[in-house]
Amino acid sequence: MALYVQKFGGSSVADVERLQRVAQRIYDTKQAGFDVVVVVSAMGKTTDDLVKLAREVNADPSDREYDMLLSTGEQISISVLAMALHALGIGAVSMTGPQAGIQTDASHVKAKITNIEPARVQAEIDKGNVVIVAGFQGINPNNDIATLGRGGSDLSAVALAAALKADRCQIFTDVDGVYTADPRVVKNAQKLDVISYDEMLELASLGARVLQSRSVEFAKKFGVEIEVLTSFEVKPGTVVKEEEAMESVAVRGVAADENQAKVTVQTLPDKPGAAAELFKKIAEAGINVDVIVQNVSDAGATDISFTVEKDDVTKVKGVLGTEGILYDEGIAKVSVVGIGMRSHTGVAFRMFQALADNDINIEMISTSEIKVSVVIQESQANLALEKLHAAFGLDA
Amino acid sequence: MALYVQKFGGSSVADVERLQRVAQRIYDTKQAGFDVVVVVSAMGKTTDDLVKLAREVNADPSDREYDMLLSTGEQISISVLAMALHALGIGAVSMTGPQAGIQTDASHVKAKITNIEPARVQAEIDKGNVVIVAGFQGINPNNDIATLGRGGSDLSAVALAAALKADRCQIFTDVDGVYTADPRVVKNAQKLDVISYDEMLELASLGARVLQSRSVEFAKKFGVEIEVLTSFEVKPGTVVKEEEAMESVAVRGVAADENQAKVTVQTLPDKPGAAAELFKKIAEAGINVDVIVQNVSDAGATDISFTVEKDDVTKVKGVLGTEGILYDEGIAKVSVVGIGMRSHTGVAFRMFQALADNDINIEMISTSEIKVSVVIQESQANLALEKLHAAFGLDA
Repeated sequence: MALYVQKFGGSSVADVERLQRVAQRIYDTKQAGFDVVVVVSAMGKTTDDLVKLAREVNADPSDREYDMLLSTGEQISISVLAMALHALGIGAVSMTGPQAGIQTDASHVKAKITNIEPARVQAEIDKGNVVIVAGFQGINPNNDIATLGRGGSDLSAVALAAALKADRCQIFTDVDGVYTADPRVVKNAQKLDVISYDEMLELASLGARVLQSRSVEFAKKFGVEIEVLTSFEVKPGTVVKEEEAMESVAVRGVAADENQAKVTVQTLPDKPGAAAELFKKIAEAGINVDVIVQNVSDAGATDISFTVEKDDVTKVKGVLGTEGILYDEGIAKVSVVGIGMRSHTGVAFRMFQALADNDINIEMISTSEIKVSVVIQESQANLALEKLHAAFGLDA
Repeated sequence: MALYVQKFGGSSVADVERLQRVAQRIYDTKQAGFDVVVVVSAMGKTTDDLVKLAREVNADPSDREYDMLLSTGEQISISVLAMALHALGIGAVSMTGPQAGIQTDASHVKAKITNIEPARVQAEIDKGNVVIVAGFQGINPNNDIATLGRGGSDLSAVALAAALKADRCQIFTDVDGVYTADPRVVKNAQKLDVISYDEMLELASLGARVLQSRSVEFAKKFGVEIEVLTSFEVKPGTVVKEEEAMESVAVRGVAADENQAKVTVQTLPDKPGAAAELFKKIAEAGINVDVIVQNVSDAGATDISFTVEKDDVTKVKGVLGTEGILYDEGIAKVSVVGIGMRSHTGVAFRMFQALADNDINIEMISTSEIKVSVVIQESQANLALEKLHAAFGLDA
C-alpha cells in the first residue's frame, strides 16, 4: 500500500472547525487506499501564547525550558486530531516527536535531526492506524525535548517520509502551490505542476516562502518527493522532485527579495587578505552575507559591495563603522531561476535587456548555475518582476 | 542537606502572579538550606480548557489520547516555574513525569504508580538544582504518557518523597492545615499541629477533603512525613506522621459525610449466603458500600442496611429494584476519630450520650479501632458536629 506523509501547519488547524476539516482530508486519503502518517504543528496562536507566557516570568528564558514549554503546543494538536479521527471512525495514534523516534543533536531551540528510528510508527502503520506525529520536536541525547526551529514541522515531515520510504510528502499550506512569480505582484503568475529541488532551493532562498530551504535540502538528499498544496481546497499542488528531462525549459520562475540591504566598502586595500579580514569580522558577528561583488582595482584600492538582511544593518554598522562605508536599505534582489539555463545561453543577456528596456538600473550582478540575480532599487522591484515574467515567456 | 518535596496545586499557580509567589516560596526554602524537589499541577483552568477542547471534537475521547492531551497542562507549569526560578537566580530543571522516572501500570486516566527510578532527579539535586516535576503523570510500559487520576499530583509528590527518602513532603493547598472539625461548620474548630496516618485516613474518607486517601495510604506504607499547609501565607501547617506517644488524646477530630444514602433490604432470608449474594450483585455493578449493619434475625428473615454514595443510588435501584427495599437519601454519617480511643474506653458511650442529650436519633452505628460512626438525619448533622466537638473537649 502506498504511504503518504501529510503535514498540516498551524493555520490549517487554527480552530476546531479547521482541525475537523483536516481530519476529513486525512480520512479521504485513507479511504482512497493510502497509508497515512500525519505531521502537525501547534494550533493557530498556541505557540504565540506560550511565548508570551514565558516572557511574563522571564525576559530571557533558558533554551531547554523554552523547548519544554513550546513542545506542548504540538502535543495538544496531535491528541485532539487523533480524537477527531476517532470520531470519524478510523484508527489513529498520536505520537510526540520522541515517541516517533525523531532524534536530535544536543542543541535546543534550533536542534538538528540526527536520526529517525521509525519502528514504532511503522508498527502502527502495519496495524492500519493513521499515525499523527508532533512536528517541530525530537528527543536529544540528554533525553530532553528539543525543538527544531523555524520550519521545523516541514522538516519533521520530510525526515519521516525519508525514514519510512514514503511515496510522497504532502505539505499543506495556505497557498495552492509554487508559482512562476509571486501572484500578489505578477498578475499572470502561473502555478507550476512540477519543479526541481534545485530550483525550489533558489526560489525558497529568494523570498518564495512556501518551503524552508532546510526541508528542500533534506528532501533532495534523500530523494523525498514533496507536494505543496492547499488545505482549503481539494486540488493538486506543485510537486518538488528530481527532474531529468527539462532541457526545453530555460527559466522556471522569477522572484524578488526585498529584505536586503547593500553595503559598499570604499577603498579597500587591493592586497591579499584584505577581503578575508573584512568578512571574518562580519562572520564573527553572526551576520549572513548574500551577494558579494568586487569592482576592478583602481590605483591600489578597490570597492567591495555585499548584501545582508535589512535586520542586520545595525550589527554591520557596529562592526565596520560608517566611515568610508555606504549603506543602502532601499534595494531589492531580483532573480530568474531555472535548471534549464545550465544548457541554454543567453538567459543573462535577455534579463539585462528586459531591465534596460524598462529603464531599470542594475547595481550588482550575481550568477549561479541555475540562477541570475541582480540588485536594483527596491521601488522598481515589482516592475522588474512583471517584465521579466513576460520576457521569459512565463505568462500564460 | 535535608530534602523537602513541595507540592503546589493548580490554584496555587492559577496565574503568573501566584506562580511567581510559589517561585519565591521555593527560593526561600532553598535559601534556608534545604534541597527542594517541586511537584506542580496544571495552572488554574488549563485542565478544564483542555477537557473542553477534547469534548468539542469527540464526545467520548480515547483514554490514551486524553492522557496525551491533559499531560500538557503540567508540562506548561513546570517549564514556566523553572523560568520563574531562573529569574530569581537559582538553578532549576523541569522534568515531565516520564523524565522523573515515574512509572505506571498500563491503564490510562487513572493509572497506578508501579515504580520510581529517581536517578535523574537525584543527579540534579546533587548538582544543587531545584527539580520541578510534572504531577499527575508517569510513563507506562508502552512508553505512553499516563495520568494518575484524581489527587494524582499529591500522589506524585508523596511517591517521589518516598523514592528520594525526603525528610518531608509539603502539600500546599488553599487551607492552612487539618482541623478538629470543618471550620465552616464548627466555629471552635482547632487546627491540629500533628495527626497520625490512620486518623488522617479516617478523616479523608469522612469528608475532610484535604488529602486524598490514596496519598495518605502511600505515605503510611513508606513512612513519608507529610505537612499540609497553605500557599497563601508563611506559617506551619499540620504534620501527618506515625505517632507513638498519644495515649493522652482520645479523640482527634469529628467529621460529617453528607454524601451518603441508606439502603435497607427488608426480610432478607436468614440463611448462609444470603448477604454474600446481595453484595456480590452490588460489587459487580461497581458500587462501593460503606457502613453495613445487620439487625437480629426475626422469624427466619432479617433486615440488612448499608450506605452508598448518593450518586450510586440509581445504580443500586437498577440492581436490587425497589420492592421491599427502603432508600433514604436524607442521611449523614458523623464520626469521631482518634488513635487514642484504642486504649480508652467510653468514647462510644460519650458520643451516644451527647447525641441523646440533643435529641439526635441514631439510625446506624459502625465502629473501627480508631473511629465511631453513626448515621443520623442529614438535617441534624451540623448540630451533631458542634455538640460532639464540645463533648470531646476539642473546643479551644
